[in-house]
Amino acid sequence: MTQITAKAVSALRTKTGAGMMDCKKALVETGGDEEQAYEFLRKKGLKSAEKRSERATAEGRVYSYIHHNDRVGVMVEVACETDFVARGDEFGKLCSDICMHVAATVPSPVAVEAADVPPELVENERRILLDSEDMAGKPDEIKEKIVGGRIEKFIKERALLEQEYVKDPEMTVADRLTAAIAVLGENIKINQFARFELGS
Amino acid sequence: MTQITAKAVSALRTKTGAGMMDCKKALVETGGDEEQAYEFLRKKGLKSAEKRSERATAEGRVYSYIHHNDRVGVMVEVACETDFVARGDEFGKLCSDICMHVAATVPSPVAVEAADVPPELVENERRILLDSEDMAGKPDEIKEKIVGGRIEKFIKERALLEQEYVKDPEMTVADRLTAAIAVLGENIKINQFARFELGS
Repeated sequence: MTQITAKAVSALRTKTGAGMMDCKKALVETGGDEEQAYEFLRKKGLKSAEKRSERATAEGRVYSYIHHNDRVGVMVEVACETDFVARGDEFGKLCSDICMHVAATVPSPVAVEAADVPPELVENERRILLDSEDMAGKPDEIKEKIVGGRIEKFIKERALLEQEYVKDPEMTVADRLTAAIAVLGENIKINQFARFELGS
Repeated sequence: MTQITAKAVSALRTKTGAGMMDCKKALVETGGDEEQAYEFLRKKGLKSAEKRSERATAEGRVYSYIHHNDRVGVMVEVACETDFVARGDEFGKLCSDICMHVAATVPSPVAVEAADVPPELVENERRILLDSEDMAGKPDEIKEKIVGGRIEKFIKERALLEQEYVKDPEMTVADRLTAAIAVLGENIKINQFARFELGS
């Protein structure tokens, strides 16, 4: 059986922020291979991520990223359960990934969750859609149905968690978060973000 | 007469972002002393800062600062007239100074200008002040007068430009901006800022 050193456990712990016993177990199960151990933690975590979503998140990190030419900047507040996880590399990578996503994605998100997209914005979009040319002459019932579907899409495109993740369009930003929760073994939340673009 | 080298002009220009002829003149007038030339530009600029306040500011920089322990972060969008000034050291220092100020100042500013402090916030404060113990029994007229003065102070304390500048309480943040306008010879505006503090 492979000898798992305290140093290897500590390295995996620093990388992931997962608990010491979880890290040791992951290394034992994977013959001491750090990359496989990371995957092991991720898979194990995915199954319990849902249970964690109600746990208090009082720690975390404020992170920022300034895009090329200093013309676009993003700041994000990401919360987790412990200071230890907040300071780890994996959490830092998550914060960085979220910032990059917000900097690069068009249209820019206007809220973290779909429920927080401002109603005025949605109503304005609804009016524009109802007045659009291809709605002319359609019965109200049909109009409402088509516009309803488009509004749903509109909201999904503007809520950060619902957006296609810029680094992997097969997943949403919420999926990226769940992956981090799985690895780190803590509840993680995006509390808020801001995106500034020069002159807009 | 002192020989002013192209290198000295260029150095002062990079530092201040002021025009080439202005930099050369400042160096000639001060016998080639960079520090005195800087002051010369500043004094000269102060007199014309007011004239600049209507000029278009389409360039600038998005800048951020993350405070100790990654628990407080500030992002600011500062606009000026040309890309050349935006990229200079002096402008970068201004952006940094504003971020530090917003990170450190209590209470945190809620708007750039006094006119942009949200009316709901002001009305809420007015109600609290009118209901405070030391108002009890006073005639309405006197109440209004006292509370009016306190509200004025409340707004000044929460508008970024009106706040005492954290690095020099003898001046306001607006004064810090005016000093930069004087040195750089361009109109400069704080377009927006955000301050995130973990868990608040």
